[in-house]
Amino acid sequence: MTGRGPLRAVALGGGHGLHATLRALRRLTTDVTAVVTVADDGGSSGRLRRELGSLPPGDLRQALSALAIAETGESLWAEVFQHRFGGNGALAGHAVGNLLLAGLFEVMGDPVAALDEARRLLGVSGRVLPMSPEPLEIEAEVSGLDDDGSLRRIRGQVAVASTPGRVERITLRTPQRPGGEPSACEEAVRAVLDAEVVFLGPGSWFTSVLPHLLVPALHDALLRTTATKIVVLNLVPQPGETAGFSPERHLDVLFQHAPALRADVVIADRDSVPAPVCLREAAGRLGATALLADVADPDREGVHDPDALASCVREALGLRETEGRKG
Amino acid sequence: MTGRGPLRAVALGGGHGLHATLRALRRLTTDVTAVVTVADDGGSSGRLRRELGSLPPGDLRQALSALAIAETGESLWAEVFQHRFGGNGALAGHAVGNLLLAGLFEVMGDPVAALDEARRLLGVSGRVLPMSPEPLEIEAEVSGLDDDGSLRRIRGQVAVASTPGRVERITLRTPQRPGGEPSACEEAVRAVLDAEVVFLGPGSWFTSVLPHLLVPALHDALLRTTATKIVVLNLVPQPGETAGFSPERHLDVLFQHAPALRADVVIADRDSVPAPVCLREAAGRLGATALLADVADPDREGVHDPDALASCVREALGLRETEGRKG
Repeated sequence: MTGRGPLRAVALGGGHGLHATLRALRRLTTDVTAVVTVADDGGSSGRLRRELGSLPPGDLRQALSALAIAETGESLWAEVFQHRFGGNGALAGHAVGNLLLAGLFEVMGDPVAALDEARRLLGVSGRVLPMSPEPLEIEAEVSGLDDDGSLRRIRGQVAVASTPGRVERITLRTPQRPGGEPSACEEAVRAVLDAEVVFLGPGSWFTSVLPHLLVPALHDALLRTTATKIVVLNLVPQPGETAGFSPERHLDVLFQHAPALRADVVIADRDSVPAPVCLREAAGRLGATALLADVADPDREGVHDPDALASCVREALGLRETEGRKG
Repeated sequence: MTGRGPLRAVALGGGHGLHATLRALRRLTTDVTAVVTVADDGGSSGRLRRELGSLPPGDLRQALSALAIAETGESLWAEVFQHRFGGNGALAGHAVGNLLLAGLFEVMGDPVAALDEARRLLGVSGRVLPMSPEPLEIEAEVSGLDDDGSLRRIRGQVAVASTPGRVERITLRTPQRPGGEPSACEEAVRAVLDAEVVFLGPGSWFTSVLPHLLVPALHDALLRTTATKIVVLNLVPQPGETAGFSPERHLDVLFQHAPALRADVVIADRDSVPAPVCLREAAGRLGATALLADVADPDREGVHDPDALASCVREALGLRETEGRKG
């Protein structure tokens, strides 16, 4: 670690996985930036995206809420943000925070400024950025849907996350600029370049973790940054998109989508790794050391324990510091 | 005026009329409380009320916004509050502030606490209260709809405000407690009792001004308060509910709905009063002095000029002070 002041940490992801990383990171530093997927097309986010053409706000809201809970405990505005309207009318299922973010996006015209305003409302010092300023769409090549072994293309986060087939590869589309290359949020690129540590995962592998690698400017920033890069593996394979995936297959898929990317550390839960040797080999192909530790929340299936994850990250960073001194 | 500190002012009303009073009042004092009708059933408010069973938030939002503009100028949150979603989807026409207020109501379970939170967000020192903690419904007896001169009952603010007939009388219903007596917001009652000056009007006479007089506890507070009571008349009759109404008929209707109520001053725009003698007589029946002044905004038809209205109020309060000393 060469920086002065608090450790500059960036977490790439989305959904519940990012929630876990952010809560762990806030135990280590006050300087946390979340870079969040914007390819959701389901639920409240999907409806807002289709109706207003806005960035899907759900994963952004979740990240803000995770930081708010980690920083301030349960606050009123965090609760209001997460509150969903009930019933079966036009608003049913919409989270108030999603509606507020959509309103801020429209009024301010700049999602980054809008998110900064939202975090001020929540009293959050960490920053939440979209990985791209435009809504993106995931397209997947999926096998196993037809008897003849052919690949099918399916589109949209919900379809990919719930396919009964096997996801082989994803790409990102720009629905508002057909055929265009996904643009990166400039502040997100800068955050990755300035970071001392960058996290990838845990989370829905194809729909929340890998998309960042498919935004060219963000991918390049991940290659250029001098930050320690830490991949945090999931505790359990996700039904649908990664059903039956071994921990090492998660890493192989990462490598397949970004062959030039190297990582420093892969963190995995000891009990979630049936074959540590295979995981170490797969980590090695990414240039990384595998760190096996007890990072699962014993009370909640499939959820990381923020304290355990934080102490594991501390160890991971300590490791590298020692190695650096040795060299 | 006997109080210490800033003048304690309360404005009863709703919609655009209340907007005018609040902007004028904020030129006189920092201690402003708006007591707002909750009988709207149209537009965004009506949809939220029907879908969520919440207080119709629109008039409350307008009052918060008027105070925000008067106190802080155009602020970001005031703009976000007033921003309406476009298009023709499920959210089209909803003001972001309405959705946020509805969310705060649900999370906090107490509209007064929720409105206090909203005014903190907007940086407003004035207070906005609902006249009742429950959504109410206006019912009107209307003449002129049938050839035989019989009265018809019509229900709902939109129907009353736009009737081609002549509104003779209104009553308030409690849709959530059929047959119940409209309950008052306790803080609103206390504000009226503690006030030094209370304003009634301008605004849609039957749907924004008179309803307050039909909430029994609020009516009683208006009788008991020692505050100077000022009625501010509209500049033009409103198409629909008060089409063809003279200024004095507005006062007679007030008297008819609350015969025990006395006022101190009636403010009317000089150019909007064809027969000053008749107005003075009608004011006299309420126990009030008529004050005719130039209070119309020369550039906007039917809108009071906040500065002119403020200086007229200053004069009205000064008058009474002098009279008090004489006595």
